[in-house]
Amino acid sequence: MTKENVQGAGEEEQQAQSKKALKKQQKEAEKAAKKAEKQAKLAAEQQEAEEDDFAKDRYGVCPMVQSQQKLDRALVRVQDLTPEKAEQQIWVRARIHTSRAKGKQCFLVLRHQQFTVQALLAVGDRASKQMVKFAANLTKESIIDVEAVVKKVEQKIESCSQQDVELHVERIFVISQSEARLPLQLEDAVRPEGEGDEEGRATVNQDTRLDNRVIDLRTTTSQAIFRLQSGVCQLFRDTLINKGFVEIQTPKIISAASEGGANVFTVSYFKTSAYLAQSPQLYKQMCICADFDKVFCVGPVFRAEDSNTHRHLTEFVGLDIEMAFNYHYHEVIDSITDTMVQIFKGLRDRFQTEIQTVNKQYPSEPFKFLEPTLRLEYKEAVAMLRAAGVEMGDEEDLSTPNEKLLGRIVKEKYDTDFYVLDKYPLAVRPFYTMPDPSNPKYSNSYDMFMRGEEILSGAQRVHDAQLLTERAMHHAIDLEKIKAYIDSFRYGAPPHAGGGIGLERVTMLYLGLHNVRQTSMFPRDPKRLTP
Amino acid sequence: MTKENVQGAGEEEQQAQSKKALKKQQKEAEKAAKKAEKQAKLAAEQQEAEEDDFAKDRYGVCPMVQSQQKLDRALVRVQDLTPEKAEQQIWVRARIHTSRAKGKQCFLVLRHQQFTVQALLAVGDRASKQMVKFAANLTKESIIDVEAVVKKVEQKIESCSQQDVELHVERIFVISQSEARLPLQLEDAVRPEGEGDEEGRATVNQDTRLDNRVIDLRTTTSQAIFRLQSGVCQLFRDTLINKGFVEIQTPKIISAASEGGANVFTVSYFKTSAYLAQSPQLYKQMCICADFDKVFCVGPVFRAEDSNTHRHLTEFVGLDIEMAFNYHYHEVIDSITDTMVQIFKGLRDRFQTEIQTVNKQYPSEPFKFLEPTLRLEYKEAVAMLRAAGVEMGDEEDLSTPNEKLLGRIVKEKYDTDFYVLDKYPLAVRPFYTMPDPSNPKYSNSYDMFMRGEEILSGAQRVHDAQLLTERAMHHAIDLEKIKAYIDSFRYGAPPHAGGGIGLERVTMLYLGLHNVRQTSMFPRDPKRLTP
Repeated sequence: MTKENVQGAGEEEQQAQSKKALKKQQKEAEKAAKKAEKQAKLAAEQQEAEEDDFAKDRYGVCPMVQSQQKLDRALVRVQDLTPEKAEQQIWVRARIHTSRAKGKQCFLVLRHQQFTVQALLAVGDRASKQMVKFAANLTKESIIDVEAVVKKVEQKIESCSQQDVELHVERIFVISQSEARLPLQLEDAVRPEGEGDEEGRATVNQDTRLDNRVIDLRTTTSQAIFRLQSGVCQLFRDTLINKGFVEIQTPKIISAASEGGANVFTVSYFKTSAYLAQSPQLYKQMCICADFDKVFCVGPVFRAEDSNTHRHLTEFVGLDIEMAFNYHYHEVIDSITDTMVQIFKGLRDRFQTEIQTVNKQYPSEPFKFLEPTLRLEYKEAVAMLRAAGVEMGDEEDLSTPNEKLLGRIVKEKYDTDFYVLDKYPLAVRPFYTMPDPSNPKYSNSYDMFMRGEEILSGAQRVHDAQLLTERAMHHAIDLEKIKAYIDSFRYGAPPHAGGGIGLERVTMLYLGLHNVRQTSMFPRDPKRLTP
Repeated sequence: MTKENVQGAGEEEQQAQSKKALKKQQKEAEKAAKKAEKQAKLAAEQQEAEEDDFAKDRYGVCPMVQSQQKLDRALVRVQDLTPEKAEQQIWVRARIHTSRAKGKQCFLVLRHQQFTVQALLAVGDRASKQMVKFAANLTKESIIDVEAVVKKVEQKIESCSQQDVELHVERIFVISQSEARLPLQLEDAVRPEGEGDEEGRATVNQDTRLDNRVIDLRTTTSQAIFRLQSGVCQLFRDTLINKGFVEIQTPKIISAASEGGANVFTVSYFKTSAYLAQSPQLYKQMCICADFDKVFCVGPVFRAEDSNTHRHLTEFVGLDIEMAFNYHYHEVIDSITDTMVQIFKGLRDRFQTEIQTVNKQYPSEPFKFLEPTLRLEYKEAVAMLRAAGVEMGDEEDLSTPNEKLLGRIVKEKYDTDFYVLDKYPLAVRPFYTMPDPSNPKYSNSYDMFMRGEEILSGAQRVHDAQLLTERAMHHAIDLEKIKAYIDSFRYGAPPHAGGGIGLERVTMLYLGLHNVRQTSMFPRDPKRLTP
């Protein structure tokens, strides 16, 4: 410590600082000594390993796979390791989920996606002491190739997905090494909420998960959620293509804000500026005016809304439908509800493993639906809420708590988690909503609900340029800004209706989850833009 | 004309102006007289119609379809009007494609999507003089409901898609009226280029088409192009899902520009700013690091490139693939080429009508491909080009003309419109491209071509954090900005490769079209943001 450093410091302080510095120096010396010792040990081990190890060609770290060779070696997937493969010698690629050394043995749990299998190395004919030690020291999450014999086990291995077999490892090579310190532990990340509390075990909070999404997505729960979500998209499209729908691609960069300009993101576009589409609606409708008759699209939807709730995202995936009909917009409601029912059935029949996996961490009741889908009128819903003690006006929109309460009342009365609410008050819907011809207070519009939360909003649209102009003026919308929209209907437009579904909400509510960030791989909200 | 108005004007000028004004007044008077005459005539006709018309309930303009009633009336589609329906009385909804009055008869061509049928009204038992006149006066593109008897015809009607039948109309009602002046004529819009020139007939230029896309999309050519494009997406996804791929959804708003910050659109994001994703690559790779193994996504890709060419858009649809492999990235090339071959076969087998429809306006040779797909090395391509007289360096990228020339050479030599160029020079590829282990000048990267134009660019990616850091430094990329990207590979990453396909280019090149704006419904380029 130089004089300059202690200028102006009192004697006591000086002494304290000297002591601190001394301690620090001692610590560092100890650290260096330990390190040197460790290195010496490692070198000795290495030498020992190389000199005496009869198994030295049976383990190690592979050079980075750079496509050096086309190896003619089949890799068996963990999920395919069943008693039928007993006594076969096979190769497996998997991550090290856990590893535990015990005397001359090393127990590994190997993981690939949702599937795990136990693997055993024991000092003997095929494995040396050094080889077992090597295996025991491998870091969790490293990817390895092992050659092993599949062995049937007497007692089921409860901790693994493959309960009837284990692997007796004969060769083990590292394909990609993980750093030793993981930002979160997978076993913590799949622990049901509350379960860890009593035993002082950790669960992982949402921000830590999302900050380290690459690891969080490896959990059985995440793997199941996003495989099921892929299924939702596939079922949605397959059902609609079977019904004669055409898939369209609509632009996301648009020149004018479609619905008056609120909650819209601005983009710089060369020398001008543009906006991100809040919905593909205008374009879907243009396709209807262009005779495509039945169209759908799957794509991002952007909402610059500063809503920090469990169910709002600033960017989400819209499953959008638009359809010309003959005489009544209920033809469209029927098409949409049938599509939803096909999705529910497909998930139930084809994704049972995924549903059960998610339920282990987040228990929920199986999703219930009726055929045909229950359709209630808004009026009836208001009456049911009033009967339950809610005070609300005829033309008032549903608040979120009332929406949920209504869901519970409907579930109790009709035993369904899915229903349609039809004939919303005209006052609470956008200007392009077709008024009800029999009662000007209402409209030909509808929402759909899953477990008491809205997943779709839709309506018959005004397809007549003159009425559309009147409605826009009634809403005090600048006609100049929506001229192109209105002009679309001047050259013959079929009556049509449609709606937009939020993919993340459908996945969340089907699985009975409670936050839409769990069903968005890389969620965007007012406070999160990464990863 | 007041004194004030002519102040300072010479006598001559005054006279000229007076003459002009006089002429104008005369014209206006004539116009008014004509209008009055017309109105009187119309009123008289109306009266006559109402008084004497025995058929007055058989035609007219329907009130706007506002879902007043659920009509139990089946509508037969135009494409289903075949001789099997002869003598049946049916209802059809269609647009008026053309209408022509001839004495006491009116010939209509009715159109629905790509399909047309001839319809006939004749004064007689079922139709009055007034009714025929009403039909003759309907504006083109109006949507009508007609009740008619299907009649077999002796001689094929060459001008219609339904050549063996015509409709004898008994009732005709307007569902949605088109304005009389159309911004473009559909028959002009489908005329093959050059064909109109000799006879002085119009074709429609691209900007007029795009400015009035709602009408341009109604042409048989547009209907066919976009139905086929929907098929490309469906075939792409179905093939990959069968191969065990999972569909993912990646965010389009990102916090940092992924590839150095050039050509990226900026978005205002609450109190900060963000960017539009130039590709889903980082997210696809994160999914691979998160054990999804084989992923794909279909979504918008944004490029703020000021390129005004026939094949660049600022927003296009990316069909993206990323896949972990075992030992060699050719495993991934094989998966991608097989997917492309499945798409080509599916289009050939399931979209022959659409292909032929497009060929009528834009003739092209049938698309040819080999099984297995031809794979050439970059070196060989350079040698072939040199043999054709091109001067270029070993590590030089392909220019667009050389790309096309190579396509012609390959087509001549191998008779294929689809091939892979493998092992690009490392110098012309992005920093995350895996170097070739056997020659540091080359890389494990590839492009794929259709009819001599690039449709996919891909590579084995560097999956090792240390090598990735070195490569980024070599490219002088700010490590701080790609920290999250590099960190994704620290916790065990499988070797992987992938690529991104431009949907609009695949459709364009498969059909032998020459501008990507023909295969984008609502194209975006540096000069176009609408509709």
